[in-house]
Amino acid sequence: MKLGSYLEKVKEERPLIHCITNYVTANDCANILLAIGASPVMADDIMEVEEITTMASGLNLNLGTLSTNRIPAMLKAGKVASGLGIPVILDPVGIGATSLRKNTFKQLIDEVYIHVLKGNLSEILTIASGSSCGRGVDSTDLAGNDFVEQIKIVKVLAEKLQTIVVATGPIDIISDGNQTYLVRNGHEMMGKVTGSGCMLSALMTAFLSQASEQGLKAAVASVVAMGVAGEHAYKELLKHDSGNAMYRHYMIDAVYNMTGELLEEMAKVERWKH
Amino acid sequence: MKLGSYLEKVKEERPLIHCITNYVTANDCANILLAIGASPVMADDIMEVEEITTMASGLNLNLGTLSTNRIPAMLKAGKVASGLGIPVILDPVGIGATSLRKNTFKQLIDEVYIHVLKGNLSEILTIASGSSCGRGVDSTDLAGNDFVEQIKIVKVLAEKLQTIVVATGPIDIISDGNQTYLVRNGHEMMGKVTGSGCMLSALMTAFLSQASEQGLKAAVASVVAMGVAGEHAYKELLKHDSGNAMYRHYMIDAVYNMTGELLEEMAKVERWKH
Amino acid sequence: MKLGSYLEKVKEERPLIHCITNYVTANDCANILLAIGASPVMADDIMEVEEITTMASGLNLNLGTLSTNRIPAMLKAGKVASGLGIPVILDPVGIGATSLRKNTFKQLIDEVYIHVLKGNLSEILTIASGSSCGRGVDSTDLAGNDFVEQIKIVKVLAEKLQTIVVATGPIDIISDGNQTYLVRNGHEMMGKVTGSGCMLSALMTAFLSQASEQGLKAAVASVVAMGVAGEHAYKELLKHDSGNAMYRHYMIDAVYNMTGELLEEMAKVERWKH
Repeated sequence: MKLGSYLEKVKEERPLIHCITNYVTANDCANILLAIGASPVMADDIMEVEEITTMASGLNLNLGTLSTNRIPAMLKAGKVASGLGIPVILDPVGIGATSLRKNTFKQLIDEVYIHVLKGNLSEILTIASGSSCGRGVDSTDLAGNDFVEQIKIVKVLAEKLQTIVVATGPIDIISDGNQTYLVRNGHEMMGKVTGSGCMLSALMTAFLSQASEQGLKAAVASVVAMGVAGEHAYKELLKHDSGNAMYRHYMIDAVYNMTGELLEEMAKVERWKH
Repeated sequence: MKLGSYLEKVKEERPLIHCITNYVTANDCANILLAIGASPVMADDIMEVEEITTMASGLNLNLGTLSTNRIPAMLKAGKVASGLGIPVILDPVGIGATSLRKNTFKQLIDEVYIHVLKGNLSEILTIASGSSCGRGVDSTDLAGNDFVEQIKIVKVLAEKLQTIVVATGPIDIISDGNQTYLVRNGHEMMGKVTGSGCMLSALMTAFLSQASEQGLKAAVASVVAMGVAGEHAYKELLKHDSGNAMYRHYMIDAVYNMTGELLEEMAKVERWKH
Repeated sequence: MKLGSYLEKVKEERPLIHCITNYVTANDCANILLAIGASPVMADDIMEVEEITTMASGLNLNLGTLSTNRIPAMLKAGKVASGLGIPVILDPVGIGATSLRKNTFKQLIDEVYIHVLKGNLSEILTIASGSSCGRGVDSTDLAGNDFVEQIKIVKVLAEKLQTIVVATGPIDIISDGNQTYLVRNGHEMMGKVTGSGCMLSALMTAFLSQASEQGLKAAVASVVAMGVAGEHAYKELLKHDSGNAMYRHYMIDAVYNMTGELLEEMAKVERWKH
């Protein structure tokens, strides 16, 4: 299946995507899902997540503004999704920062079948190393290190967890432990918008919901889609006197107007030979 | 009272509107209330809602991202409002999706005097049928059915609940069981913005707070105001390369600049003869 | 240190700012922190705030949408910050409205070293008088009163609490009990945007994190920065048919593009002689 086809399928099928996510960027996640043609539903109370997940085509779990109330709801929804074969995308926001997030991550990985683990590079390296090396919730700190080594870490983590791992950064790394792709789309200004990572996780859940196979290419397609949106927003929509607030909306608008064809045409994807 | 007069009264009186609402669209609800000239206050902890509602001129209850903590706060605030004669507008977001929302709705309808029940058509039909026929939180699925039959269902529900019922869709239906109005304002792109329904509920609460009579015309006026904002945003403000993110803001901006006169002029309202 | 230097230091140092804030405007607070070059982290669960605050360079506490869950987290984070000498900025949103907010404020003032208490004029007067004289969460009601008297109240409150007090309004008052400054930047349209006060508190926390001295000038600089952003957004970015939704984004964009030089040039600051 071509990369652009996932986007087209989302637009056709309008999948219902259940997000259990932080309150900071929930609105952006809902609007980017509507932009791509999906139907978002945000619900995080343990009394209702089972019913919501059961109706959904994908489940997005996000550890931002984690609360002790939301953890059992994530676990319950995750188990329901695992039982029904609904893809689960986990975004371990700020995992380097607290034990609560690390422990929740471990519980989720143990008890839920996670289809894609999607973090920024520092979050993924934190998980891989089993230790804290992240600083708050941003990603660029480690980009100066040995990139080939980082690709290998992502691949090995994917093997170990038996899941797809996506590590975002200046160059995004996507691996299922067997095959690995690099994506060179995106723009550095995306790091100036809160929730650009959360929005990618939401988009990715919609794309994964349309994957008939294991999902690696759907994950790649979603990373390309977000990156192309970031590029398009910067080059075509941003004014010289705009800043990160307008850029945030232009990214969502770029997704709204994106076609499968444009996604194909703009994609900068490379298969990495280990 | 003319439809435009409600808008003008809100601008003059700057009513304090208490919203107990979901965290996804709370910011948009606050900003659209400021746009119309009202003064929003968001508060949902049971320890403080009584004091807030007591000061307010209207109470907006919204079942999105419902939480077991927020339910008793809604009930308490609702009872305070009932006791003081403060209008209560209830938006049963996603009621077709979960038992938690259905049960909360039942409790609220039983214990609180609801002035207006405002949902999209599928939510209102779910309530009318006593069963689940909604899909997530969107509204258009049933619009292809027999529209005259749907008008009747809305009217009968209003009679039964002794409240005003508003069912939004391509054509909005507003009935108090006695009189019924149809509103043909709005634009389909509103369905691509998360919270356009929540924003209408917030606006409606401000309009209802200025109704000296029972409120049917105030409810109609708010539906027209939101619809005109959607039309104006689409025709006058949206660029060819914009999407749903910018459209969301243009709707609020259209409310900000709306006059009673424009509302009157653009209104497409029809009295329905049963 | 010149006023513009605080802004430049924030851009250089990229301080991590921990916000425990309301869900209505959390997104705007995160984006304005990114706009100024800081790194926001939003976290409010008692199980993780200690670790987050420990890593942070500043702590912003905001009483909007206060919840009984968030109060102990605020106290814990505040004590950690006090112990480590991390500046704490407290925004007593809507303190006139409820006992819960008043009691939480008292506990925080008693148990945490607050570097800056930042409210709108009516909130600060409420605190000073020990009684409720505010109406919801907005600020202009008392601006018609004796302004010289109000300046004095702010100064005396700062002395009494041994903290910096910032009272925003048409003219902002900033005092540490010893020195007092007035700032005449800003635009009245800022009052039409939910969270413009919350955004100032977030910005102020970033500025205070870069103050080597006690912080009065850093507080003044942040008030100027927000005011200049409001003026610039109004004069240079707002279109004739825009409203408060676009204005909100233009303010953040103005912060994104602000330089220390512009801040200096536009500053309307006066030292008040008591």
